[in-house]
Amino acid sequence: MSHLDLEQLREKVDAVNLEILTLINERATVIQEIGKIKEKQGVNRYDPLRERHMLNLLKENNNGPLDQKTVDHIFKEIFKSALDMQEEDHRKALLV
Amino acid sequence: MSHLDLEQLREKVDAVNLEILTLINERATVIQEIGKIKEKQGVNRYDPLRERHMLNLLKENNNGPLDQKTVDHIFKEIFKSALDMQEEDHRKALLV
Repeated sequence: MSHLDLEQLREKVDAVNLEILTLINERATVIQEIGKIKEKQGVNRYDPLRERHMLNLLKENNNGPLDQKTVDHIFKEIFKSALDMQEEDHRKALLV
Repeated sequence: MSHLDLEQLREKVDAVNLEILTLINERATVIQEIGKIKEKQGVNRYDPLRERHMLNLLKENNNGPLDQKTVDHIFKEIFKSALDMQEEDHRKALLV
């Protein structure tokens, strides 16, 4: 393969990265909405059963090449980031 | 908001999760192709300048709500997973 192929593949990676960026932010927005509802209901934001459900759904739909352990690891980071963001929002709200 | 809203938002999260899953696997496939080219060229797979370029591009395009530190953290996990996958493939190839 030529140098051009490498450049083309890198452009593809850049494009996919930006699509992933859009989706993790879109996901975070929905999680914020869910957090607001849960706050009104007075229930805990972290729900291990819901997290298990999400990981199972990902497992059922993972066709690779990433193995399930890796997929779980990436998504646990994504789950954690949404919770951290809400904690931060909550702290800021308390300081107002 | 009602219970139904919460369910609808969760369905939205499930759908976005599956889209992210498709993209991280698509990305991993392209990274495998890049790895093959680099292997032929005899150059190292890990390229800190390329990683910096990708993180800068993400920073320029991040409109939140996730902050940049969080986005960087998630993507570093994604970058690492692709490298780990290739290391594993390489180890398996050596064992054949």
